[in-house]
Amino acid sequence: MLIKTPHLFDEATAITAGDSRWQGRTSPDYWAFVGPFGGATAATILRALIDHPQRAGDPLSLTVNYCAPVAEGVFDLDVRLVKANRSSQHWCVEMTQGGGDVATLATAVFAERRPSWSHQQAAFPGATPFEQTLPYPKRAMSWVKQYDFRFIEGEPKFGSASNSAPKNAYSKMWIADRVPRKIDALSLMSMSDAFFGRIFHARRELVPFGTVSLTTYFHADAADLAAEDTTRLLAVADARIFHKSYGDQNGKLWSPSGRLLATTTQIAYFKA
Amino acid sequence: MLIKTPHLFDEATAITAGDSRWQGRTSPDYWAFVGPFGGATAATILRALIDHPQRAGDPLSLTVNYCAPVAEGVFDLDVRLVKANRSSQHWCVEMTQGGGDVATLATAVFAERRPSWSHQQAAFPGATPFEQTLPYPKRAMSWVKQYDFRFIEGEPKFGSASNSAPKNAYSKMWIADRVPRKIDALSLMSMSDAFFGRIFHARRELVPFGTVSLTTYFHADAADLAAEDTTRLLAVADARIFHKSYGDQNGKLWSPSGRLLATTTQIAYFKA
Repeated sequence: MLIKTPHLFDEATAITAGDSRWQGRTSPDYWAFVGPFGGATAATILRALIDHPQRAGDPLSLTVNYCAPVAEGVFDLDVRLVKANRSSQHWCVEMTQGGGDVATLATAVFAERRPSWSHQQAAFPGATPFEQTLPYPKRAMSWVKQYDFRFIEGEPKFGSASNSAPKNAYSKMWIADRVPRKIDALSLMSMSDAFFGRIFHARRELVPFGTVSLTTYFHADAADLAAEDTTRLLAVADARIFHKSYGDQNGKLWSPSGRLLATTTQIAYFKA
Repeated sequence: MLIKTPHLFDEATAITAGDSRWQGRTSPDYWAFVGPFGGATAATILRALIDHPQRAGDPLSLTVNYCAPVAEGVFDLDVRLVKANRSSQHWCVEMTQGGGDVATLATAVFAERRPSWSHQQAAFPGATPFEQTLPYPKRAMSWVKQYDFRFIEGEPKFGSASNSAPKNAYSKMWIADRVPRKIDALSLMSMSDAFFGRIFHARRELVPFGTVSLTTYFHADAADLAAEDTTRLLAVADARIFHKSYGDQNGKLWSPSGRLLATTTQIAYFKA
């Protein structure tokens, strides 16, 4: 079931189907500080679920707990359908390497989404068009190179501002795959971890940082995403608190047409 | 380890320690539409983790996936320490009844929180004092009776407004245990699910509703909570979208002194 495609993202998040155990391999193209980009890991887990023969419906929520660093190389995904209902499924996925401790622990809910009363209360923030927004030029890490970030507000500026007043952690940006790729649940999942650490914004400096737990809710199913037919998102991210070595992040991912496709939150470790 | 206390909440969330399997019992005092109040279930799971002999540190995040209805009576908690690091732990808990399917699946992160740079970016919303705010009088369900809700904004009003424009889903309220009880991680967890369904606010009517997945981040450790020494919280909740039978909720739980103690988000099923 390993499908070769020309897009790096699909190669980076490819998995080989097993019975309940699936296999993947970290990608040097989506590498972060000390391991694979967490968004690629989350997307790989989601791909294993979407490709699973027992899967029914569309992703509704995915929580990924990053338990330990993932080393370069192959990993196993232990995929378990914990409970299947008439129109929803609950899954649990454990990532291990070489039969060792669990490196990543995830739970997911899938649902067959039925038509209902619909109301988008959150207001689309709007932005200068993608084409008229300057690409973010600094791309030291390999995973950052795979995305085209165009900041409208809150472009990261790293100076020596650590002893001045905290800066606003809010950012608004366009996100697209550097090589255009149609937005699907996999890229939504990955992009929901593609914000820079809020602590970098608040402190205007890079500090040791790592996402501990990430939760993304999908507000669009496959048909909705197909209808949007877009390769880019307008994304906003903010933080509420940094305290005793942990800080939060919350984000919204919008289609260019103004539809809220996903919301995401995470808690992250920092050293500062 | 079953500790009898005079407070209903502690009785309702009591557990009996086992080896890796712990036992509890649903409480008629915290009952919702078709099963136990989800907040009490989440707090019971958290209690099993906090009381676990291998537990180190304070709760940092808890995600609870409500997989199937929980019936009245006893349940088992299968508690597993998935990964222990130097200063953090990753847990997985499965709730079952009578050896059946998993009814509730939870993952948690505990952490020993070290002093760090600290910054609360979110602004305390403020409110009329608890004593000067009227208690919410309607308490049809048993779990609602256990809390003292005092709405400052967005008190639920249920009429026949379903075919008029959607109403704002935002609420701001004081929450306290009806019988005062000092706020700890357990009550924070429970109260993070004690908002009324956002769909009830947006539609101004009660519709079939159930939380599917709930995630709460703790921004205060036990020492912080002890220092607050309070029995009530100022809480705000809002929704961003209702679409194809699922809607989200996000909330913040503040101490009266203006400290952000927890943030929470959930995705819920509705029929409307």
